Amino acid sequence: MGWKSDIQAAAERITGHIQVTPTLQVLNFGLNYPIELKLEHMQHTGSFKARGAFNTLLSQPVPPAGLVAASGGNHGAAVGYAAHKLGHRARIYVPEMAGPAKISLIEATGADLQVVPGAYANALELAQDYEAETGAMQVHAYDAPATVAGQGTCFAEWQAQGLQADTLLIAVGGGGLIAGAMAWFDGSKKIVAVEPETSCALHAALQAQKPVDVEVSGVAANALGAKRIGNICFDLAQSQNITSVTVTDAAITAAQVALWRQHRILVEPAGATALAALMSGAYSPTPDERVAVLICGGNIAPDPLG
Amino acid sequence: MGWKSDIQAAAERITGHIQVTPTLQVLNFGLNYPIELKLEHMQHTGSFKARGAFNTLLSQPVPPAGLVAASGGNHGAAVGYAAHKLGHRARIYVPEMAGPAKISLIEATGADLQVVPGAYANALELAQDYEAETGAMQVHAYDAPATVAGQGTCFAEWQAQGLQADTLLIAVGGGGLIAGAMAWFDGSKKIVAVEPETSCALHAALQAQKPVDVEVSGVAANALGAKRIGNICFDLAQSQNITSVTVTDAAITAAQVALWRQHRILVEPAGATALAALMSGAYSPTPDERVAVLICGGNIAPDPLG
Repeated sequence: MGWKSDIQAAAERITGHIQVTPTLQVLNFGLNYPIELKLEHMQHTGSFKARGAFNTLLSQPVPPAGLVAASGGNHGAAVGYAAHKLGHRARIYVPEMAGPAKISLIEATGADLQVVPGAYANALELAQDYEAETGAMQVHAYDAPATVAGQGTCFAEWQAQGLQADTLLIAVGGGGLIAGAMAWFDGSKKIVAVEPETSCALHAALQAQKPVDVEVSGVAANALGAKRIGNICFDLAQSQNITSVTVTDAAITAAQVALWRQHRILVEPAGATALAALMSGAYSPTPDERVAVLICGGNIAPDPLG
Repeated sequence: MGWKSDIQAAAERITGHIQVTPTLQVLNFGLNYPIELKLEHMQHTGSFKARGAFNTLLSQPVPPAGLVAASGGNHGAAVGYAAHKLGHRARIYVPEMAGPAKISLIEATGADLQVVPGAYANALELAQDYEAETGAMQVHAYDAPATVAGQGTCFAEWQAQGLQADTLLIAVGGGGLIAGAMAWFDGSKKIVAVEPETSCALHAALQAQKPVDVEVSGVAANALGAKRIGNICFDLAQSQNITSVTVTDAAITAAQVALWRQHRILVEPAGATALAALMSGAYSPTPDERVAVLICGGNIAPDPLG
């Protein structure tokens, strides 16, 4: 058994629960080469995280107390949604600072939502207390094999949809998504990790040759702002010697605007971060290199129809 | 020669100029059956109208004076964009009441934009004066064979992408898009025309058995608010005896919210009108009837990133 078979098993397990997301090829964004896009922000709850959440809940016993998570964003929404669809209880502790758009998103999943004053650490503490008291299961946002295998199904799906690219650009927060890509392609495609320069846990870890704590801030921090890269991601990234680049907040915002203005694809900053590496020149493909960009999240704040 | 070959010729002509738009199948929106969607709002300038504009400009000589159009919306943007890309001048008269989002959209195409005080009629008058004075070519928004053949390429493309549905639901304004569908499928699929009940030129014409003037208002009027259905559309609709339904503004808004909340597809009201027929029950498929919905336009106002 290896990652490939784990991902294939995950894909079978979550079929019917997750949305097969569309792909398209565009020639735009002021670039003189085509880009393949996968619109994973159209996934249930607006990000790829539904894949890992469903795979986790469907591959192990869920205790009677259900699930618990601390999250101000996409992970909490995915866990809440998957739990609700599968008939489990889910208590999600959300820091008040997550803001009304993300809080509404999680609330809409049917989860037992607890808004906690202050920042993430306070929510996490309460979630850990709840876990200890009730036996509820924590779902890790990125550093667990079932999570990584679930995110990997996104790339298995893309390959089945006819992905042509030599190189994939993927935004990195805690590293669950890109770990899924590295696990699936296993060196058969070049993987480029893209992080905001103000939230670059993988970049810092690759430089230090081990996971290290980083400060996180910037426009994409509420989705990509992991303080430390996951071990699974780090080990794969180091052993595959992947390319790591960083982009500025201004580049992320420019890519976000371009996706909307040129193709009516409205995403949160994290969802535009991988494209920003191409538009800003942080990564420049060679003339015959075919590139693909995963659009990973669409939960923009404020909600445009809120 | 017939419509089918005209549409095939149009498709060859505009290849490379237009965006191949993605498709997906969803099971959502509170409905218990899957729906195929085509995301044509991701077309250049945010609507299918780029197809007809390119086909028109590429299938006939364009005079040195270039193009002229009067439009407060998607048609003007498409003509401006196609003209600019093909190196023609385009003067677009826009009524001030079109609002800043649509005016910016047209301006961004590189067209020679003239904002005209008042409503559409004033803009049209100035466009006609300009045509008479300069010899510039008017591109009809919906009732011309080259326009209809161009819009028909959307359905040829969808079929090549593996469209399974028995029945297609399509929003109708002046009728160029649905005429393209009727021309392409020629009775091989059931076509359901969906109009706002406050802007229903085709519905009224089918009842009167001839095109008649209607009053137009409501949330989708700036895209679907044709005062009279095009003759090409009417003749095809009558001869094919298609199904015509209407929906309320509330149903359109509910579908618009559902597309965003459930799939991060942000569209203008016109783009949600066809889906509204299913969600509201204005059209109910039989248990074994497979349905598809074309998402036709995404130029929402105000611009969410404006």
